[in-house]
Amino acid sequence: MEALKINSDRLWDSLMEMAKIGGTAKGGCCRLALTDLDKQGRELYIKWAEEAGCIVKVDAIGNIMCTRPGEDMSLAPVGTGSHLDTQPTGGKFDGVYGVLAGLEVVRSMNDQGIKTKHPIEISVWTNEEGSRFAPAMMGSGVVSGRFTLEEILDKTDVDGLRLGDELERIGFAGETPVTGRSFHAFFETHIEQGPYLEAEQKQVGVVTGGQGQRWYNATLTGRESHAGTTPMHLRSDALIASSQLVLKVEEIAKAHPPGCGTVGFMQVMPNSRNTIPGEISMSIDLRHPIDQELTKMDAALKLAIAEIEATGPSVALDPFWYYEPIHFNAECINAVRQATIDLGYSHMDIIAGAGHDACYVSDFAATSMIFTPCLNGISHNEIESTTQQECEGGCSVLLNAMLTMAEVV
Amino acid sequence: MEALKINSDRLWDSLMEMAKIGGTAKGGCCRLALTDLDKQGRELYIKWAEEAGCIVKVDAIGNIMCTRPGEDMSLAPVGTGSHLDTQPTGGKFDGVYGVLAGLEVVRSMNDQGIKTKHPIEISVWTNEEGSRFAPAMMGSGVVSGRFTLEEILDKTDVDGLRLGDELERIGFAGETPVTGRSFHAFFETHIEQGPYLEAEQKQVGVVTGGQGQRWYNATLTGRESHAGTTPMHLRSDALIASSQLVLKVEEIAKAHPPGCGTVGFMQVMPNSRNTIPGEISMSIDLRHPIDQELTKMDAALKLAIAEIEATGPSVALDPFWYYEPIHFNAECINAVRQATIDLGYSHMDIIAGAGHDACYVSDFAATSMIFTPCLNGISHNEIESTTQQECEGGCSVLLNAMLTMAEVV
Repeated sequence: MEALKINSDRLWDSLMEMAKIGGTAKGGCCRLALTDLDKQGRELYIKWAEEAGCIVKVDAIGNIMCTRPGEDMSLAPVGTGSHLDTQPTGGKFDGVYGVLAGLEVVRSMNDQGIKTKHPIEISVWTNEEGSRFAPAMMGSGVVSGRFTLEEILDKTDVDGLRLGDELERIGFAGETPVTGRSFHAFFETHIEQGPYLEAEQKQVGVVTGGQGQRWYNATLTGRESHAGTTPMHLRSDALIASSQLVLKVEEIAKAHPPGCGTVGFMQVMPNSRNTIPGEISMSIDLRHPIDQELTKMDAALKLAIAEIEATGPSVALDPFWYYEPIHFNAECINAVRQATIDLGYSHMDIIAGAGHDACYVSDFAATSMIFTPCLNGISHNEIESTTQQECEGGCSVLLNAMLTMAEVV
Repeated sequence: MEALKINSDRLWDSLMEMAKIGGTAKGGCCRLALTDLDKQGRELYIKWAEEAGCIVKVDAIGNIMCTRPGEDMSLAPVGTGSHLDTQPTGGKFDGVYGVLAGLEVVRSMNDQGIKTKHPIEISVWTNEEGSRFAPAMMGSGVVSGRFTLEEILDKTDVDGLRLGDELERIGFAGETPVTGRSFHAFFETHIEQGPYLEAEQKQVGVVTGGQGQRWYNATLTGRESHAGTTPMHLRSDALIASSQLVLKVEEIAKAHPPGCGTVGFMQVMPNSRNTIPGEISMSIDLRHPIDQELTKMDAALKLAIAEIEATGPSVALDPFWYYEPIHFNAECINAVRQATIDLGYSHMDIIAGAGHDACYVSDFAATSMIFTPCLNGISHNEIESTTQQECEGGCSVLLNAMLTMAEVV
């Protein structure tokens, strides 16, 4: 079968139409999970999906499932999807591209009169960003069993509003159970959110897995004292110790390529110009696609901390989250790679650096992802940008990969 | 003349009595400038000073002047004093000891029937701490001409209350002009607020001057990006750059003993666990008793910043405050040292690491200071502590030094 293409203008128009809901002055989008704007976005999406002939259901955590019937409805669907919620100062493509690419696949199948053996199912997963309610990737996490429905419904935002109540309020506490979902195969299309495809001048990233992650909180305790009267040799400066640790985290990541190490959060106490800092709270984020390497990075971090403690300040390390590297399904990866080749796109294998709904879906289904370039690798930012051509490319790959797995009849 | 001693119990009782005004559960004191508690402290002080025979006046910035007449009232007074305001979580001795030591000197002169040629004058300087209204050392700074009265009266606290209005409200906007003050000599007794006297087991510090200070704000700008998707070699991490700068500040201070270098304040933007920091604001505080050395430290800082900028992030340095090293008056220093020797106290010369009212007074009058030990060098803290014996020692030195300069008749 010759490689098919989607309708590029229609996909782009839908992206621009959806971006108006929560659109910001700087050209980005603010559509936080379970707000009135999220409700508007969801309702528009359902309208479009129903117009495209999908049967729409909503589950107990608010995930939306849009099904295009297949010839054999007893078979598990071939799925795709992503999320409609954004960061507070997010862009127009992160997540949204993935769900609208799914819709465009269905619309293109309709246009081209394609029938499949397996049903096609698009998922709009609830609260992927985790900005308003933590943790992230909630909807897919509940379905995969990473979280229980009950614990997630009880999460609250900074104003103390309960997630379960907000879900009811916007009319998306659905009746479909979160358990028992299955996919014959699942694909997620997403902007890369990083610089690799652009740097290598590739149109499509064939995502073979997700990095492992180890997240820590560290508290460094020295001794507060007067910056003018305490001689250097009698100090126990927690900020000196934490600065050493920040540089060690960088050194450890660089020593374990292509690992990443980041301190993104730091709070200084008492944070006063002429007082030597007595306590620092900081985050540490280590990532690596190979679990043994991530384990080595963890060991190197603990060694670095022991060395810093030997100089005076104490360091309490809380390794509160471990997320093992994800290896996507070989058949799904091959379907993506073959579609890319058939369409004549330049491509490269790539590892997902960030978490995605597809990572949790891969707990219970054969999964892969399709990455497309984004300008300067910038995401989670109102200036996040990509082109119509790049969106078209990823979506056409999705169409052909899904058709391979869904079996055209 | 044989060295005289003050009344140790009376001094200590007055310290404990004053500490009740604003006393905290942890044994410290919270008596912020120009609050109702400051008013209570000032009124108690004036009552005691008048009972000791002093003539009390208040100037336009609220400084209280308590004069014990001398034989020749045409001569400039021999002065002493400090402040009654405290840090929000301050102790019982910082500042308060200096003004109550002055009162005890007058009381002791009365007890012992001592008359002097020069008048004796105790100053309670307004708002030394600068906690509620910045900058610090306001009362002495206005009298010295470092600040204009008008600019200071217009300062506001975090609630937007104007200093001039608060001064009126508590009844301390006095009629005496702030200009034209003079002293034949001025002494300030203060707890050291540092660890040197304790470490050297000395009872008294003969303060020969104050450190020079250079204060800077630095803003480091890198590029915000995703912690999971941005490879190490493509990052411009502002926190890496600021960590290098923190360690450089320490290195510079250690290379210029007995200089001090401190980063006490740091703010990370956007301060999110999985975003590479794009911007850091930080303070830098360099101090040295010798101006040429402080100049070298300043040059070394600028060199270090140029080196950091060469790695990517940009650094904007704002050197917003320079305070030249203070050299106290030789005659006043000698009077303190001689009194210490006459009283048989162990002593050492010392440089004031922090700012004090006496530093501003030294702009227009012969000045020195007397330091006494404080437990573990800790100050600006509710656990700030010293002993009755240590307070007695410094106050007896003050009495004898003042008598030397005031000429007993």
